[in-house]
Amino acid sequence: MSDFITINTPLDMHVHLREKDMLKKVVKYTSTNFAGALVMPNLVSPITTKEALMNYKNEIMKLTKGDNFEPYMTLFLRDDYSREFLEEVKDDILAIKLYPAGITTNSENGAKDLRSDKMMKVFTTMSDLGITLSVHGESNGFVMDREKEFLDFFDFCAKKFPKLKIIMEHITTKDSVDFLNKYDNVFATITLHHLLITLDDVAGDMLRPHLFCKPIAKRYEDRDALLEASLNNKKVMFGSDSAPHPIHKKEACGCAAGVFSSPIAIPKLTQIFDENNKLDSLNDFISLNAKKIYNLNPIEKKINLQKKAFIVPNKYDDVVVFCANEEIPWSII
Amino acid sequence: MSDFITINTPLDMHVHLREKDMLKKVVKYTSTNFAGALVMPNLVSPITTKEALMNYKNEIMKLTKGDNFEPYMTLFLRDDYSREFLEEVKDDILAIKLYPAGITTNSENGAKDLRSDKMMKVFTTMSDLGITLSVHGESNGFVMDREKEFLDFFDFCAKKFPKLKIIMEHITTKDSVDFLNKYDNVFATITLHHLLITLDDVAGDMLRPHLFCKPIAKRYEDRDALLEASLNNKKVMFGSDSAPHPIHKKEACGCAAGVFSSPIAIPKLTQIFDENNKLDSLNDFISLNAKKIYNLNPIEKKINLQKKAFIVPNKYDDVVVFCANEEIPWSII
Repeated sequence: MSDFITINTPLDMHVHLREKDMLKKVVKYTSTNFAGALVMPNLVSPITTKEALMNYKNEIMKLTKGDNFEPYMTLFLRDDYSREFLEEVKDDILAIKLYPAGITTNSENGAKDLRSDKMMKVFTTMSDLGITLSVHGESNGFVMDREKEFLDFFDFCAKKFPKLKIIMEHITTKDSVDFLNKYDNVFATITLHHLLITLDDVAGDMLRPHLFCKPIAKRYEDRDALLEASLNNKKVMFGSDSAPHPIHKKEACGCAAGVFSSPIAIPKLTQIFDENNKLDSLNDFISLNAKKIYNLNPIEKKINLQKKAFIVPNKYDDVVVFCANEEIPWSII
Repeated sequence: MSDFITINTPLDMHVHLREKDMLKKVVKYTSTNFAGALVMPNLVSPITTKEALMNYKNEIMKLTKGDNFEPYMTLFLRDDYSREFLEEVKDDILAIKLYPAGITTNSENGAKDLRSDKMMKVFTTMSDLGITLSVHGESNGFVMDREKEFLDFFDFCAKKFPKLKIIMEHITTKDSVDFLNKYDNVFATITLHHLLITLDDVAGDMLRPHLFCKPIAKRYEDRDALLEASLNNKKVMFGSDSAPHPIHKKEACGCAAGVFSSPIAIPKLTQIFDENNKLDSLNDFISLNAKKIYNLNPIEKKINLQKKAFIVPNKYDDVVVFCANEEIPWSII
């Protein structure tokens, strides 16, 4: 095996770039390492208007000028989006993100009744217009059961809207992996951290706030199923769910959910695929699958890596990073 | 129902009084509220000699002089305890505590092979001498399965040593509650916090370090089974597992396990039993069951409560307390 590898046009199909100071700090780790990224809309005031959407996109474009990077935008799903509005924004977005109310950071205004008539109307319009439905698929139940309990909704929705493209975001369970086989119109993103950690890492010995995320990391058999899917299943694509918080919101009494992984995602994924003798599938997971699923034609961009170890710093721009202080055997050159 | 209740001779059959400064800070919350308490031996240097045992007991006695309080002492189980040693200490201890190696705070030197010939010899001697075996019953497996996986050992041990009194400490699952029915020589302690919280409280929305403990809080059906047992089952007794840590070890990156509940345990238990219309069983859970299980004849002590609300402070002596800032409708008078 060569000591060099090139990733063609890496895509991060689920990232939280945040806003204001945090956006300015973190966006470069996505824009320099990736050719494109699907930007989540759960800002403090979620993105629900064309104006907010374009302002956010323009700000990201301005900050990433010269990085050869394309932000793919999303809207925060509301049940009162009109067909007229969706027709107006459809060329500016890649997906609309469904957050069940209260399920994660800044989702207080999320959807309360997912099967209401109003919601059905929005899904119908999205299906007609070819807008993808991106979903944070968790119920309000017991933390270890939330994702499994939500499969009912995916089942209902995939069947009722066979032309609607549905993305199960950041899946964390074997059940979700298995569910992917059930419908042609259902796909998934998988994060880096869920390929590596389980609840044991979050709360097995000490409580580790920097590994606390939603959905929470599950069991070993779940992690194994996610890895297997990432290595082999063309219905899954990489979405980091990189979700930075200021350190005082992580190392605190009442730590916020989210793992910040953008700066090290590509080298760490390379390590994982290398250790599983699947380097030849890395480009599928990190680029080609997403291109096919979303019919993307992204900017060409090559990221070159060399098998040369580096020590991950504790923080990037004051934000504690996933794999902090670990040695990763592959470096971006 | 009267607005006054008296607890006769309350006993806390599982408490961590710690050592040095922490001991000086916290011991009064046990010694003033309880007539006796079973003191855990997992100090930084675990209690494994008669000298350490007596020094620790004397220090506790000195600090609690005049409180009408009796500390019941324990040893930290080692597989090389001789019959001679156990005969020498048996009147100074109420139990020997088994910690599987590495399972909780200061348990690094715990037992590695629980079914070794050496261990069998110690259990035989304990059984002969009538020394109770107190057990932190967790495997080294996945955090949500550790207690269930450990039941095998209880099964083995209870069957092999039918005269050995075995205490399943701080049980947290329905499986453990059900297991109690299987052997006459098996009993359990239940904490206050496991009657109230589940994993959802620890890691369901935010990460809450002050609710992080070992065994970790489990599912709703487990919590319900623990409550049912506390209200009705004479094989269980109250053991707070109050386990204070300095605030910098709790609100940190890598929070230590343990909930500090001694100062508010009695009023909060009174509230729980009151809300379940079982105030007449409170004395069983908090005193009589323990007396019978351990054949104790503790100092007489009455704790009087009135149905008068108080707000729990955030901290007692710099240690963040369970139910901080909550209102509890019963006060000790």
